[in-house]
Amino acid sequence: MLLTGEMLIGQQAVAGSREPIYAINPATNEQLAPAYHGGTSKEVERAAQLAWEAFDHFRETSLDTRAGLLDTIASEIEALGDTLIQRAMAETGLPQARLEGERARTCNQLRLFAEVVRSGDWLDVRIDPAMPERQPMPRVDMRLRQIPVGPVAVFGASNFPLAFSVAGGDSASALAAGCPVIVKAHSAHPGTSELVGRAVQKAVAQCGLPEGVFSVLFGSGREVGATLVADHRIKAVGFTGSFSGGTALMQIAQQRKEPIPVFAEMSSSNPVFLLPEALKARGQELAEAFVTVLNNCAGQFCTSPGLLIAERSEALDAFVARAAERIEQCPTQTMLTPGIFDAYEQGVNALIANARVRQVARAGESAAPNQCRAALFVVAAADFIADESLHHEVFGSAALVIECADQAEVQQVAERLEGQLTATLQLDDADMDVARRLLPVLERKAGRVLANGWPPGLEVVHATVHGGPFPSTSDSRTTSVGSAAIVRFLRPVCYQNLPDILLPAALKESNPLQLKRRYDGKYEY
Amino acid sequence: MLLTGEMLIGQQAVAGSREPIYAINPATNEQLAPAYHGGTSKEVERAAQLAWEAFDHFRETSLDTRAGLLDTIASEIEALGDTLIQRAMAETGLPQARLEGERARTCNQLRLFAEVVRSGDWLDVRIDPAMPERQPMPRVDMRLRQIPVGPVAVFGASNFPLAFSVAGGDSASALAAGCPVIVKAHSAHPGTSELVGRAVQKAVAQCGLPEGVFSVLFGSGREVGATLVADHRIKAVGFTGSFSGGTALMQIAQQRKEPIPVFAEMSSSNPVFLLPEALKARGQELAEAFVTVLNNCAGQFCTSPGLLIAERSEALDAFVARAAERIEQCPTQTMLTPGIFDAYEQGVNALIANARVRQVARAGESAAPNQCRAALFVVAAADFIADESLHHEVFGSAALVIECADQAEVQQVAERLEGQLTATLQLDDADMDVARRLLPVLERKAGRVLANGWPPGLEVVHATVHGGPFPSTSDSRTTSVGSAAIVRFLRPVCYQNLPDILLPAALKESNPLQLKRRYDGKYEY
Repeated sequence: MLLTGEMLIGQQAVAGSREPIYAINPATNEQLAPAYHGGTSKEVERAAQLAWEAFDHFRETSLDTRAGLLDTIASEIEALGDTLIQRAMAETGLPQARLEGERARTCNQLRLFAEVVRSGDWLDVRIDPAMPERQPMPRVDMRLRQIPVGPVAVFGASNFPLAFSVAGGDSASALAAGCPVIVKAHSAHPGTSELVGRAVQKAVAQCGLPEGVFSVLFGSGREVGATLVADHRIKAVGFTGSFSGGTALMQIAQQRKEPIPVFAEMSSSNPVFLLPEALKARGQELAEAFVTVLNNCAGQFCTSPGLLIAERSEALDAFVARAAERIEQCPTQTMLTPGIFDAYEQGVNALIANARVRQVARAGESAAPNQCRAALFVVAAADFIADESLHHEVFGSAALVIECADQAEVQQVAERLEGQLTATLQLDDADMDVARRLLPVLERKAGRVLANGWPPGLEVVHATVHGGPFPSTSDSRTTSVGSAAIVRFLRPVCYQNLPDILLPAALKESNPLQLKRRYDGKYEY
Repeated sequence: MLLTGEMLIGQQAVAGSREPIYAINPATNEQLAPAYHGGTSKEVERAAQLAWEAFDHFRETSLDTRAGLLDTIASEIEALGDTLIQRAMAETGLPQARLEGERARTCNQLRLFAEVVRSGDWLDVRIDPAMPERQPMPRVDMRLRQIPVGPVAVFGASNFPLAFSVAGGDSASALAAGCPVIVKAHSAHPGTSELVGRAVQKAVAQCGLPEGVFSVLFGSGREVGATLVADHRIKAVGFTGSFSGGTALMQIAQQRKEPIPVFAEMSSSNPVFLLPEALKARGQELAEAFVTVLNNCAGQFCTSPGLLIAERSEALDAFVARAAERIEQCPTQTMLTPGIFDAYEQGVNALIANARVRQVARAGESAAPNQCRAALFVVAAADFIADESLHHEVFGSAALVIECADQAEVQQVAERLEGQLTATLQLDDADMDVARRLLPVLERKAGRVLANGWPPGLEVVHATVHGGPFPSTSDSRTTSVGSAAIVRFLRPVCYQNLPDILLPAALKESNPLQLKRRYDGKYEY
């Protein structure tokens, strides 16, 4: 498939008129053709108008139709075959196996949402029937269903060119809810975005849906992104990226005449608590596993373990020594973009320059560009607590070990952490009491609490929470991964005393869609 | 029971140090004793710290304990007997029957939430069990439950001194979720707030719960209210009141280091569509019913019907004539506060002064203070669309009839409406096609769509939605009334691979709480 460098607005391909954006192969710093000329407010206007016109129709399509769209998108992405993987590799520097795995995850995710749509559980049907005889006043019939909020703007992430991008979790869950989607493609992987965008475009046509259901725009965040979020027809935003990017969109969304929710997944250091008995019993094994995870794809995961917290002990020293040894041996890895590489270097250099922090390992140099050299640092708990700069994520293969005088100090560090996507306990049976004291703090701090595992490699299931208190996300009440991600794009509507003939199928007394319903407060099975 | 004019902070009663706040009897403009001296940041600090200290314990109390608290609060409010009703009458000018009804609703609401807590459905338990044999990678065990967000600040409304105040829907749903509550009492009914606050305080003690679970503060919105919302220990805000008050709190909440959600229910004109056949068949009856509703408690409801929309016709003229005739005969009614009366007069005078608007009825004058004189106005649809000032709520017994040239213009008016709590269709069988075209628009505009009824007198059930697109509320994805109100104060946490012994009871494999669970995506019954 030939890339054209055009935006996809409904069923059209539209050339932009602004400065060209080129993908950069981060392994070589070479520009990749074609040029993607950025859009303007004109293209935003066109995509938003099409999305708005499609909304009322799309949201009332049958559950099967919408599920069919998601399944078709998955098939069309698979049909892109190796072209997609090769382009994504060139644009991101990520290895083939990782991208093939990510494609599988992306397609599984689309199919999971197809299943979710078909089940109709998300409609949350509640029926409180009339009680004409009730005293002192009769009760009227009240019925609730969830409806989609409206067109959604999605901002793809740099680190997951498939699973958190054009047809990633935000798009899949918004389409599942019945929301048209306009993607502002990430400038780091425009070719991958065009390929996937064309797959979605094809799926929309195949399913006979209005073209406005889906568009992909290219361009600057300041021009295209900001205009999109400010557009009155856009009713919610999905974003995965940096803290500064996410909070900038939040501000635009809040300053609108009609403020809208921004679901931004932004930053997390993913603390790992090494409990004393586990550390004593299998510190070497934990050190090996930790370094493997830290180095996976240069640590470019939202959930890469950036903080390790433990009581000072011989076992901790041995853990640090082994981890340091392994890190020194780590080959460097190409980072996603020159910008991400620069930010990583800046973050690591700030740690090196910090007098409270001790560097214990750094992977060797490499002549190739944009190479991530893993790094490990140690800091005393009191110093960590005193220095907020140490609390922020360094995106990449860098981690900071926080040495605590005792478990009370471990607890204190836990209480001082920012909001996180994940918090992990490495524990053995004899650590249960310590774990039990930490758990209430970790629940307050993180959206996912793990035991004896490592946070990357998130399962996309019904119980998934990829969310957490600010600043890890903008709204701790939501997840951007897993079937519960759909609720972000829904709002409840109550129908009072409507004639059955006017009620949507989901709410008709005869239950033609065979939905699970809450009738008079009790679930009907 | 003697009122002391003190704030209630945990189990203490604390005298404020700022300017005294006196309730005003709006029927006489007389001050009511005692003086309520406003609090300062010192009392906010104390209440917030107590709430924070209570949180981890309170949120893990058993479902029965928390349900017991809600039931006990209801009983303690009932035990206040006529003292409460008499004080509320003096402070609000509302009639006895209305306040007795509101007390019943308040207590029913507390008991509904007790039932909700006991059911545990809100925990939304999801279990995706491990699949150790899965290829290429085993699947880990993932379990989700909802946990409360943290201490909640509640701002009571002036127009519902019981049901939307100290122990109203926001407090009930937050306590049900497991969130400690700090109420900033409305200065219009401090005595009512103290009485109910003491009933809650007593219930907390009776149930053996930590005192920080509940506090009531008095004082200025600028000092006490703003400090409370800015406090880092407060994790969500419930508010019912004016647009300016709600948006001010939203701004404070968004500017925090950790932004928090504000659930503000603010303003709604509650459009009523008079469809042609219904108007023809029973216009006179509709006019009578409309005026009765408009005059109910001086129209001081969030859902008072402020806009009537219909096609120009003889039937509409006859409707307006009858409604006007009835309004002219309406006795005046005491409004809640001098401030609300002033705002009403200002709103009505702006309509009178508006050259596009025709006044068709105004109730007679009265010598008593703060008297609401009902008013009816008519405007042409094109003029309504052109003049945004006409789109805003006038709180009280004023309504505006919008005359449309045809159904296309009715549709156009519907599209131009702001977000609303409710939208109502008055329809007959022959109006179904017209209704069917309006319905998708009304769903987008409102949280509750009614047929052949009037929006005030909301049922508090499971299907209730008292919410809607901005500016009717700050978050259209939520409701402040009905059992679904609890979700505002919850966030999901996923537990990955935790040993059963560490899991909360709700998630243990043996299901000791006998909860409905979603196991591998399927509901277990």
